[in-house]
Amino acid sequence: MRLVTFRNVEGTTSAARVENPDALTLTPIPGVQDVGELLRRPDWRELAAAAEGNEVSVEPTDLAPVIPHPDKIICVGLNYANHIREMGRTLPEVPTLFIKFAEALTGPFDEVSIAPWAQSAMDWEGELAVIMGRDARRVSKSDAEDYIAGYAVINDCTQRDFQNRTLQWHQGKSLEKTAGFGPWLTTSEEWQPGGQLRTELNGEEVQSSPTHDLVFDPATLVEFISHLYPLRAGDVIATGTPGGVGHARTPARYLADGDRVRISIEGLGSIHNSFRFES
Amino acid sequence: MRLVTFRNVEGTTSAARVENPDALTLTPIPGVQDVGELLRRPDWRELAAAAEGNEVSVEPTDLAPVIPHPDKIICVGLNYANHIREMGRTLPEVPTLFIKFAEALTGPFDEVSIAPWAQSAMDWEGELAVIMGRDARRVSKSDAEDYIAGYAVINDCTQRDFQNRTLQWHQGKSLEKTAGFGPWLTTSEEWQPGGQLRTELNGEEVQSSPTHDLVFDPATLVEFISHLYPLRAGDVIATGTPGGVGHARTPARYLADGDRVRISIEGLGSIHNSFRFES
Repeated sequence: MRLVTFRNVEGTTSAARVENPDALTLTPIPGVQDVGELLRRPDWRELAAAAEGNEVSVEPTDLAPVIPHPDKIICVGLNYANHIREMGRTLPEVPTLFIKFAEALTGPFDEVSIAPWAQSAMDWEGELAVIMGRDARRVSKSDAEDYIAGYAVINDCTQRDFQNRTLQWHQGKSLEKTAGFGPWLTTSEEWQPGGQLRTELNGEEVQSSPTHDLVFDPATLVEFISHLYPLRAGDVIATGTPGGVGHARTPARYLADGDRVRISIEGLGSIHNSFRFES
Repeated sequence: MRLVTFRNVEGTTSAARVENPDALTLTPIPGVQDVGELLRRPDWRELAAAAEGNEVSVEPTDLAPVIPHPDKIICVGLNYANHIREMGRTLPEVPTLFIKFAEALTGPFDEVSIAPWAQSAMDWEGELAVIMGRDARRVSKSDAEDYIAGYAVINDCTQRDFQNRTLQWHQGKSLEKTAGFGPWLTTSEEWQPGGQLRTELNGEEVQSSPTHDLVFDPATLVEFISHLYPLRAGDVIATGTPGGVGHARTPARYLADGDRVRISIEGLGSIHNSFRFES
């Protein structure tokens, strides 16, 4: 089952089940504003599966971030084994965690607008996002799968100068409406990590990695984080990016006005955001 | 005006105006669950000032975190000039920001329970909290005061081993229900930074600093952060801790089972949390 949040003409949003992902035909889930609200209902699977009524057809730019307002977006650094090994580092024993706020999210096909003071070093980070389907407190790894609703694609879009001008990365990781997120949630019974993640910049492939090459897999991350603080239904874990970001290139390569970033994960669909530099 | 969130016997909470802070007599604000909800109403000052009806009297442990569920809690590192200078460092040009989640908050007089795996290096950080009273996007420093609702006391309680085992501090900064926050919000027309911040461990003073010794004052922080992403009414900025934390002592001194941490700021009141180690 694929679940999506789409924008209505009135400026509100609705949750829907995706009938045909290529044609973007959807069956709205009555009375539910977005997929985050849906996941906070204990019977969300049954509610989404049972929705019936008139199908609607939408444009890509009608799609909102699949969870528009998660309570928490926890990002993992340094998590792809092949990338860590190619950098000559040893695999970490503990995940590195930092935070992106809901204000940083944008729709999967939205144009991203970059403020004048932030244009120096914008970079892409294609990532697999894990979306929680139940509240999770002190959950063991063996039980963790039961708490995951499903998966989506996210761009952990990063301003490298802001990330690195202090010891803490957060201020470069949460710029307003920079992180495409979607296009939809694919539920966990239909998809498991493994498919290839690919990032293309203006059509040129810049990142490519299988999504099962994680040092800390989704179940391990749910166990680890839920022993720090409770996770809530609708919370998001961005699982880290593989090699190929612009900042690590020689010379470094950053986004320019008009650039287009497409991130796809086999089986989860793709997001495609163009970047416009405010004057 | 002082505003507080208190717990009802039914397990819900209510927002109230404080009539007598010593006796904890309050006038509930009808129909408002907590101070966060109150601040999201554009007319919150008038609504709070106009509340009338039967006063109630509560116990300290009836007080909830003054904003129980802020969308964002942004913490500032390395912000007290005297502490930075005494460490022989130069003053930073840019604030260091990291995040604590709402799940880390606890009432200003609650007992804090520390999980078995987190007991090795719990530390105190007495801080001044700034609470936003309006949504703020790209706000200039000269306008920033208008966006601040007021101030409170917070313990940026930290697990030092977790803070330092990776490059990013977040995982040591957000342990469940560790950060006392309150006792109430004092509105900005009644209080401005300057009063002494004091932290006592079992009655012994361990931190003491005037709260106007900040490298980045509240208005500067609102300007800086609101140019990264929008702040919302009810969001919290924890402005950093002065010298005297346990981790910086020789030998280092961490919290033990039964320890009591009292943090006061002249004019804002005090919070007082005891720590219990789970077996």
